[in-house]
Amino acid sequence: MTKQLFHILVFIVPIIALLPWSPESRRIPFLGKQSLVQKPPNNLVADNYTYEIRYYEQTLDHFSFDDLPNFSQRYLINTDHWAGPSRMGPIFLYCGNEGDIEWFAANSGFVWELAPRFGAMVIFPEHRYYGESMPYGSREEAYKNASTLARLTAEQALADYAVLITDLKRNLSAQASPVILFGGSYGGMLAAWMRLKYPHIAIGALAASAPILQFEDIVPLETFYNIVSNDFRRESTSCFDTIKKSWDVITSVGRKVNGLDQLTKTFHLCGKLKSTDDLYNWLDSAYSFLAMVDYPYQSEFLMPLPAYPIKEVCKAIDNYADGTNVLDRIFKGVSVYYNYTGTVDCFDLDDDPHGMSGWDWQACTEMVMPMSSDKNSSMFPEWDFNYTSYAEECLNEFGVTPRPTWITTEFGGHDYKSVLKTFGSNIIFSNGLLDPWSGGSVLANVSDSVVALVTEKGAHHLDLRAARDDDPDWLVAQRASEVQLIKGWLDDYYTTKKAAFNM
Amino acid sequence: MTKQLFHILVFIVPIIALLPWSPESRRIPFLGKQSLVQKPPNNLVADNYTYEIRYYEQTLDHFSFDDLPNFSQRYLINTDHWAGPSRMGPIFLYCGNEGDIEWFAANSGFVWELAPRFGAMVIFPEHRYYGESMPYGSREEAYKNASTLARLTAEQALADYAVLITDLKRNLSAQASPVILFGGSYGGMLAAWMRLKYPHIAIGALAASAPILQFEDIVPLETFYNIVSNDFRRESTSCFDTIKKSWDVITSVGRKVNGLDQLTKTFHLCGKLKSTDDLYNWLDSAYSFLAMVDYPYQSEFLMPLPAYPIKEVCKAIDNYADGTNVLDRIFKGVSVYYNYTGTVDCFDLDDDPHGMSGWDWQACTEMVMPMSSDKNSSMFPEWDFNYTSYAEECLNEFGVTPRPTWITTEFGGHDYKSVLKTFGSNIIFSNGLLDPWSGGSVLANVSDSVVALVTEKGAHHLDLRAARDDDPDWLVAQRASEVQLIKGWLDDYYTTKKAAFNM
Repeated sequence: MTKQLFHILVFIVPIIALLPWSPESRRIPFLGKQSLVQKPPNNLVADNYTYEIRYYEQTLDHFSFDDLPNFSQRYLINTDHWAGPSRMGPIFLYCGNEGDIEWFAANSGFVWELAPRFGAMVIFPEHRYYGESMPYGSREEAYKNASTLARLTAEQALADYAVLITDLKRNLSAQASPVILFGGSYGGMLAAWMRLKYPHIAIGALAASAPILQFEDIVPLETFYNIVSNDFRRESTSCFDTIKKSWDVITSVGRKVNGLDQLTKTFHLCGKLKSTDDLYNWLDSAYSFLAMVDYPYQSEFLMPLPAYPIKEVCKAIDNYADGTNVLDRIFKGVSVYYNYTGTVDCFDLDDDPHGMSGWDWQACTEMVMPMSSDKNSSMFPEWDFNYTSYAEECLNEFGVTPRPTWITTEFGGHDYKSVLKTFGSNIIFSNGLLDPWSGGSVLANVSDSVVALVTEKGAHHLDLRAARDDDPDWLVAQRASEVQLIKGWLDDYYTTKKAAFNM
Repeated sequence: MTKQLFHILVFIVPIIALLPWSPESRRIPFLGKQSLVQKPPNNLVADNYTYEIRYYEQTLDHFSFDDLPNFSQRYLINTDHWAGPSRMGPIFLYCGNEGDIEWFAANSGFVWELAPRFGAMVIFPEHRYYGESMPYGSREEAYKNASTLARLTAEQALADYAVLITDLKRNLSAQASPVILFGGSYGGMLAAWMRLKYPHIAIGALAASAPILQFEDIVPLETFYNIVSNDFRRESTSCFDTIKKSWDVITSVGRKVNGLDQLTKTFHLCGKLKSTDDLYNWLDSAYSFLAMVDYPYQSEFLMPLPAYPIKEVCKAIDNYADGTNVLDRIFKGVSVYYNYTGTVDCFDLDDDPHGMSGWDWQACTEMVMPMSSDKNSSMFPEWDFNYTSYAEECLNEFGVTPRPTWITTEFGGHDYKSVLKTFGSNIIFSNGLLDPWSGGSVLANVSDSVVALVTEKGAHHLDLRAARDDDPDWLVAQRASEVQLIKGWLDDYYTTKKAAFNM
């Protein structure tokens, strides 16, 4: 039985938002195949931005002095439009998240488009333990065991960025150049946290779809699945009802003699279904990922999707003739997600659930984001987060015990409004309300300079993507607000610098 | 030849502010004997404050997930005057520095005296690797080698305090109780840094005599020794001149046949002087420590001293009859420091210079505080800080390479004014200008709430000591300002809480 609790935050990597389906809570870390490869498929690196690829000799442990080997941290850099050190040209730093950095660079067109307007340098450092930035020389060595993975933490990654950018600026005599941080999803969390922890290094941060509050009991544990569910309900209540009904149907079919064969056939699976849990996970993944990428235009991620894909899924589910079997409807619906091009003959549920992945390690150490689902408010079966089981599973899988209260101790979260009001500044939390991660982010202005930009119809950090002719007006307006705020931060910075210079 | 570069910050531990005396810069880590013992002598724990001693099961590495044993962190706690969780009684947290915590508790009367006035709980957590708070079960094991010492860093210590206080508050249902940080010297640096890094945990910090700017090139490298020198010059220019002259005299006597014997006799040393460097270091220690503890009343630290001891030293040097030998004068002067009670028959220079000490490890890893001395502006011989030699010595001594730019990367420092103006709040930097460490601290207000309290005649965090009847007016006034500011932070906090409650 596979019961997956973890969610990958990246908008590119397939989202594995999998519910555990039984009262026991054995945890199987799981990431899509794509997260295990070194480079994303070429067709996913859609846009071509030019940059130089460089490597930085990085310290493996910034907070201890164990005798450890340095590692080679990859970063992408473009200085074509940079105004240079004498004019204090800004530096746009994208906080790499849990994946190959070229992938993020290709899908963060907003940063590239902004650079010439501000005379900015662009730099995309890769997150340690992802892409090519592997400690101990290779992915195989880095991911060998809990001891080699030990330093895959958010604090170490932030320190990497701090050290790298400080050294780079020193080498360019660009100490006075202001740094603006960008990031989406986990990268957005890093951007916000870096602005809070390293205000002397970065003057502001655009944290897109950053669920910094999805820890402990800060937001209701049901938020994520409620938002996924509401995304379906807003398109069609009958669609929502059909999905809600489907779980029991699957369970009851699965219990029949030859029931698993029947489900294998209904869902066109390549191999015989071993347990209904595998099917639940497969469906849950589809719904959760669809909610995240419910974008207003056709897009190509790991698989091509139509504009507003949930609408299409619901159409497929609803438009069957009356009396059609619930499971046939469901299959038709998720086919929009798994087989939009119509080229797939059968579906393979075996996504290497036991492959060690970076995000699973992070979820089993610091990034404990508890989630439940409520039968009444969501279309998913009831599930209560059980930390004891979660921790047991992490111990079994990685030989590590999570620290579930560490992130809020280190970065805050409880009572964040009063803290950020008096302390933080120059952070934009941008969110689209269709995105299930928005429930764990900051959705209202905290102060004049810690602001929330919320779009009703936006999904997972759409704003970071390249501008398109068919961008809806609200997206164009959201990006314009972001530009305006960033411009304000830079203006303030230059005014202060000029005043100091003239004194 | 011993040429010591490091300075211990604590006002209690003997200050080893030792100059290297030759162009080569071999570094010998060195701390006074007292820093190597587990408990301070009873006579030094002068004041008796009551507290409970508790131990917290602490994580050894907060920033990695290596499979390491927890350690037992000692902390002192007093809740006698605490207003309790329902009234949001404040928590006064002293950030333990590099020594036994009972020692700091005994010498930080200000915190104890303040607690009843604010209905505050008092907590003194001990810094890891000091006192009884030893990883790996014992001092011997903890200090065995670079690998066992690896996690003796400021960031880990701050995380200890963050985890401890968060857990304590949770267990007392006192999450709403505001925390105020206190600290002196290195502990003051920790208090300031903790307010900056953990604003969600502490609402303000009194950072007494905290040289957070004594890194890299932020302040002139000659500052420390210039201040020591000025402290002597302001008492007597002839005293200053005599000391300035004495180095060459020592050198020339030392070069003579039987010169070292002659110096041994002049300075009443117990064992035969092996090198003039040992004598330089011994004298330099005395002058630097005298500058730090140039207090307005008689005090008893490791050795009893008169009020304004530099004045007494200079009197002793100056009051000899005309024509008296320079070295005899110097001996008479430093005898005020090393033998005020007149009970010492001979002086022992052997202070176990090779004993591994915690601060030496910190100085050889993160706490690289470069210092030079300028022949023209100081009474000390010329000395230029040489990082290459410094690093070599650390490698030889501890098998570790320092990270000289790490502290400013992690905590800032360059351009601190504009950073703290827009970001930090509720920090008091208190300094006495007689204190040579004041040159590396913040001496002017940065903003309305990041303020400097400077006393012309104050020395090393005198303000943290218990009030006395013979406290000078300026000291009474300084403490009153501190109380006023702390009261303001608490008032603001309660106002905000009340407003939130009434909403």
